[in-house]
Amino acid sequence: MAAIDGFWAVVPAGGAGTRLWPLSRAGAPKFLLDLTGGGRTLLQATVDRLRPLVGDQVLVVTGVRHASAVAAQLPGLPPGQVMAEPSPRDSMAAIGWAAAVLEARDPDAVLGSFAADHVIGDQTAFEGCVREAVEVARGGLVVTIGIEPTYPATGFGYIRAGATISGRPTARTVEQFVEKPDAATAERYVADGSYRWNAGMFVVRAGVLLDLLREWHPELADGLRAIAADPGLVDSHWDALTRIAIDYAIAEPAAAAGRVAVVPGTFAWDDIGDFASLARLAPAGGAGEGLRVLGDAALVTSVDSTGFVVPGSGRAVAVVGLTDVVVVDTGDALLVTTRERAQDVTSVVDALKAAGRTDLT
Amino acid sequence: MAAIDGFWAVVPAGGAGTRLWPLSRAGAPKFLLDLTGGGRTLLQATVDRLRPLVGDQVLVVTGVRHASAVAAQLPGLPPGQVMAEPSPRDSMAAIGWAAAVLEARDPDAVLGSFAADHVIGDQTAFEGCVREAVEVARGGLVVTIGIEPTYPATGFGYIRAGATISGRPTARTVEQFVEKPDAATAERYVADGSYRWNAGMFVVRAGVLLDLLREWHPELADGLRAIAADPGLVDSHWDALTRIAIDYAIAEPAAAAGRVAVVPGTFAWDDIGDFASLARLAPAGGAGEGLRVLGDAALVTSVDSTGFVVPGSGRAVAVVGLTDVVVVDTGDALLVTTRERAQDVTSVVDALKAAGRTDLT
Repeated sequence: MAAIDGFWAVVPAGGAGTRLWPLSRAGAPKFLLDLTGGGRTLLQATVDRLRPLVGDQVLVVTGVRHASAVAAQLPGLPPGQVMAEPSPRDSMAAIGWAAAVLEARDPDAVLGSFAADHVIGDQTAFEGCVREAVEVARGGLVVTIGIEPTYPATGFGYIRAGATISGRPTARTVEQFVEKPDAATAERYVADGSYRWNAGMFVVRAGVLLDLLREWHPELADGLRAIAADPGLVDSHWDALTRIAIDYAIAEPAAAAGRVAVVPGTFAWDDIGDFASLARLAPAGGAGEGLRVLGDAALVTSVDSTGFVVPGSGRAVAVVGLTDVVVVDTGDALLVTTRERAQDVTSVVDALKAAGRTDLT
Repeated sequence: MAAIDGFWAVVPAGGAGTRLWPLSRAGAPKFLLDLTGGGRTLLQATVDRLRPLVGDQVLVVTGVRHASAVAAQLPGLPPGQVMAEPSPRDSMAAIGWAAAVLEARDPDAVLGSFAADHVIGDQTAFEGCVREAVEVARGGLVVTIGIEPTYPATGFGYIRAGATISGRPTARTVEQFVEKPDAATAERYVADGSYRWNAGMFVVRAGVLLDLLREWHPELADGLRAIAADPGLVDSHWDALTRIAIDYAIAEPAAAAGRVAVVPGTFAWDDIGDFASLARLAPAGGAGEGLRVLGDAALVTSVDSTGFVVPGSGRAVAVVGLTDVVVVDTGDALLVTTRERAQDVTSVVDALKAAGRTDLT
């Protein structure tokens, strides 16, 4: 299949990923790392996945600190397609900036935003969803790809789908975006059948995105269009931009206004939010007995244990009698926790900063 | 107080200590390590503790592989007092060899055997017990020091004390040595009040020891006396010696014959049999929240965790949300287990040997 005419991928590459410490550090955030053992970093895999849909039409928006690392990881990307944010201004500014640049170049351009640090299982299904989403987006809607839930996740937001859209194979209107639920609510969402995981994938015409933004945050839309018109303004104007996520800035109010559609994503997807998430993706076996290993399984000895081990320093790792343990071994730091507590790894980073060990964070 | 006239300490220094892997290795067994953070190895601390009782009269019996390391750790020991066993022949041969050497030198010599890898809390109480034990031993009995139990341990054998011995402050006859009990039996022993932990400390006249041995294992007694009479025979005769522990060879049959006394040890004692044992000895606090640390506590970050950490490689160690965990970090190997499973660390060593990683064992 050929690339989609007039379609651009926008890849926001941000976030420290402190819940993946000590693999992920401020200087080496998770999108720059190969966290699946497949030989490609998450950023590279994201761009690989988009190439059949967009060809070279990829804009990566990242922090100025990581721009050169991003460019180095994507040697095939044409020059000028890594956009360096002077400071973090959340997802609306990042995606909106790329939208304003595309709008200035081609008012009918359609963009799809795809985070640099997600993992997707079925390339063919992904491409099919995006192709349908682009068709729907050309009609003027904001289109999100909502992942069919495979378990009652409490770590993701959900999208409640409404009526089908006439003439579209699978797209439906979006009734509501809902926040991360508690366990009982998540169970209900999955049983209900009309809820999808919000994977933060938005497909929309660049001009539609900015016009919608202008309805609710005119100063942000105007600021982004001004920067796109005159790149020399980035350094002076960027820091004053409103700091807001695209979900709050556009997706929720646009859904309430009946202007959002969802295409159901039937592919496996994960945002690798923490080690519990990473463990689900790691190959089973190797060290036997249910210990999953990211890296060289020959380094791991398991006795009556289950969980996830990253033998990242080359040292031997032995685990005896622990259930659902997480052991992450790196050259200068070691983490031991459980799948259940994986979300709390961020507090280690806080504690290390408080102790002055920023060399480790 | 002066050293005890005619009294010698015999320190058997053997055993790989595989349950303390990866701290303890075949080439660096636990008696050669500082496992309490006090700046002295277990062997050095053992000899330090005995010096007030015996002066220079210490014989250390160890494997030929470790003889030079033992001598290097004990520079104050007069030459010739490290006895190198050509091969492991268990505790009866080790202690019996020293006994035969002492008997040849002084038929009235009293020896006390004290393992090189135990920890004792109260030096004054220890010395008092040994002094009484020596007095009782001069009368011809085998005297053991039985530790007053402080909890219903299932990892130690027990000694059942019988009648008091007239004219002795605390010594009693020994009715029986009993094997390591199950938890319910251990509870009963502690409640009963007449049971003591068998710490493997035997005080006895050298000639009495060998004469008793000759009653039940004449060939072993004769072999040891022959080697003592002609040191040139060690290499040719050693490997043929019966391999048996002193408890089975002498202590149990002598107790049945009414020839063993026990002096109660009122000091804290531990044989550091595994990491659960080592954890009890480590200082509390430091990393806060109940994680005990052997080493530099500044390297350890604890979030909602209890247990024991050895940050032995200089790397940072973070533990999140684990109870009674054991984390032992060394330069080439890492162990993660629990206090409850500490006894099973030995199976890691078995697995590594089976995998050909003897460089790590």
